Amino acid sequence: MTSSPFPFRVAFVTGAAGFIGSTLVDRLLAMGLDVIGYDNMSTGIPEFIADARLRTNFTFVEGDVLDTQALTKAMAGADIVFHLAANADIRFGLLHPRRDLEQNTIGTFSVIEAARENGIKAIAFSSTGSVYGEAPVVPTPEDAPFPIQTSLYGASKLAGEGLIAAYSEGFGMRSFIFRFVSILGERYTHGHVFDFYKKLLADPTRLEVLGNGRQRKSYLYVQDCIDAILHAVTHAPNKTNVLNLGTDEYCEVNDSIGWITGYLGLSPTLHYTGGDRGWAGDNPFIFLDTARIRSLGWRPKLTIRDGVERTISWLADNRWALERRP
Amino acid sequence: MTSSPFPFRVAFVTGAAGFIGSTLVDRLLAMGLDVIGYDNMSTGIPEFIADARLRTNFTFVEGDVLDTQALTKAMAGADIVFHLAANADIRFGLLHPRRDLEQNTIGTFSVIEAARENGIKAIAFSSTGSVYGEAPVVPTPEDAPFPIQTSLYGASKLAGEGLIAAYSEGFGMRSFIFRFVSILGERYTHGHVFDFYKKLLADPTRLEVLGNGRQRKSYLYVQDCIDAILHAVTHAPNKTNVLNLGTDEYCEVNDSIGWITGYLGLSPTLHYTGGDRGWAGDNPFIFLDTARIRSLGWRPKLTIRDGVERTISWLADNRWALERRP
Repeated sequence: MTSSPFPFRVAFVTGAAGFIGSTLVDRLLAMGLDVIGYDNMSTGIPEFIADARLRTNFTFVEGDVLDTQALTKAMAGADIVFHLAANADIRFGLLHPRRDLEQNTIGTFSVIEAARENGIKAIAFSSTGSVYGEAPVVPTPEDAPFPIQTSLYGASKLAGEGLIAAYSEGFGMRSFIFRFVSILGERYTHGHVFDFYKKLLADPTRLEVLGNGRQRKSYLYVQDCIDAILHAVTHAPNKTNVLNLGTDEYCEVNDSIGWITGYLGLSPTLHYTGGDRGWAGDNPFIFLDTARIRSLGWRPKLTIRDGVERTISWLADNRWALERRP
Repeated sequence: MTSSPFPFRVAFVTGAAGFIGSTLVDRLLAMGLDVIGYDNMSTGIPEFIADARLRTNFTFVEGDVLDTQALTKAMAGADIVFHLAANADIRFGLLHPRRDLEQNTIGTFSVIEAARENGIKAIAFSSTGSVYGEAPVVPTPEDAPFPIQTSLYGASKLAGEGLIAAYSEGFGMRSFIFRFVSILGERYTHGHVFDFYKKLLADPTRLEVLGNGRQRKSYLYVQDCIDAILHAVTHAPNKTNVLNLGTDEYCEVNDSIGWITGYLGLSPTLHYTGGDRGWAGDNPFIFLDTARIRSLGWRPKLTIRDGVERTISWLADNRWALERRP
């Protein structure tokens, strides 16, 4: 997608054993970079970095982003940081509010402090379309009306964004803030496609669906997501760059159920819990305007349906992964 | 300004011994409320709550907002929280980045956790116009284009806003988030009017001015600010209310210097350090569109010039205050 030489030699990846982090690690290694992976293994999956660990240009450090001292030491020698560590399960924000704050906000502060200490040139951060709250403009562009936060997850990620942008302004490191829709594909281990597949394995004849199934969702395939991140850190022009990542389509949860059951050859009866939201704080519709990243020359290669099917295919081939998350 | 009965009986005020906090405490006491003041006295000034402490409807608790346990205990019995505790000196954000995060973000998290524990009905929060960063729209309305943060102070306050809004959404307490311009008036003990007065006392013949003096600034008189807060918590209609506070005028630092020196009868030579910003991260122009709070029926009573003159008059009568801050 780009012919420019990649302007970094040593990448530091937090959340390196997670879904997106490990996929990024493998891509960076394949590009010939030296990669330092950092993960506290609270939700990281050892199998995801098993191949990477066989390579001489990969170093893995087990540690928590909240441990600024260990983080700073591990980051030595890197020139770009991909900060993907996060509290990924957004449904429990109201049960464990401190977790979002610690992992997504204070953790991000720790990462930028370590980055400053190490003279890091650039930092890429996985934020979320949830920062738009109940967006009045859909598809939602990066400069949408200043939103009111509706979830702790979104609020804690927005706080991380703000800290990174302020550090870019104050200390000169460049930043790349990505507001993701939901990502799926190989190594996807949470969210509704995962939940549906797991439920259908247990009982192929019925499927409980949170909400009314009409919730509209936008997804992006994980390799398209990685393409976008690598393209942006090479092509985005500003000191601080905020970029939506997503496809230009959306689906309803019901569409996704149809693709999943069709792919598996199942016809379960569907039981809806009702209401227009899957859980309190769930946003009924996140659909992002991606004109900005497209203007830099990136395009997604897969449709949402392709992504859902690749996810199911991977889960079918890696049933062990179904047991790794509650 | 309002004839509605005030719908709260017991107010809890963080930062109660600060400039704005202590002024609010006195107003709430005069309205007949029971008031619990909470302050860690790191920058709070004992004299500001000396009168309050003589009243039977005031309780003072010395404690830090980061001490959630002490905070929760102190808050017992309150029905509204005014969260004004903050790291107020925004110039040192880059020297002590953790301070903004701790006092403005983690401190706010602690306050809303204590509020949830105590079943608080409403929370009012002092945010800042700095959250708009380099606003492309001036005067800037609350729903201006989603800004990129340019200061740690703004970022840490925006993080506090987000946490409060998410708690309102998730736990049902109402919230009132105020984005202030700079506030001045009686008990003002930091910022440029304070600095200029102190410098002029030391040497009435010359005045050093950070930047080029052309920085445009908007100010609001502290009693107008308190009027607005009390009016909003009675009249703002939403679960989460975000409201700009300011006057519909602005001045240049040079105007302010003219009013100060005119009021004092001095004619110092002016020495400019140069550049269009007073310090790194200083925003050259914060000017807020206050149509939203005005639509609720509030108007400021004083002009910026009135506010500057009342500030100087108070400082002249209370020279002890000049020594309380570095």
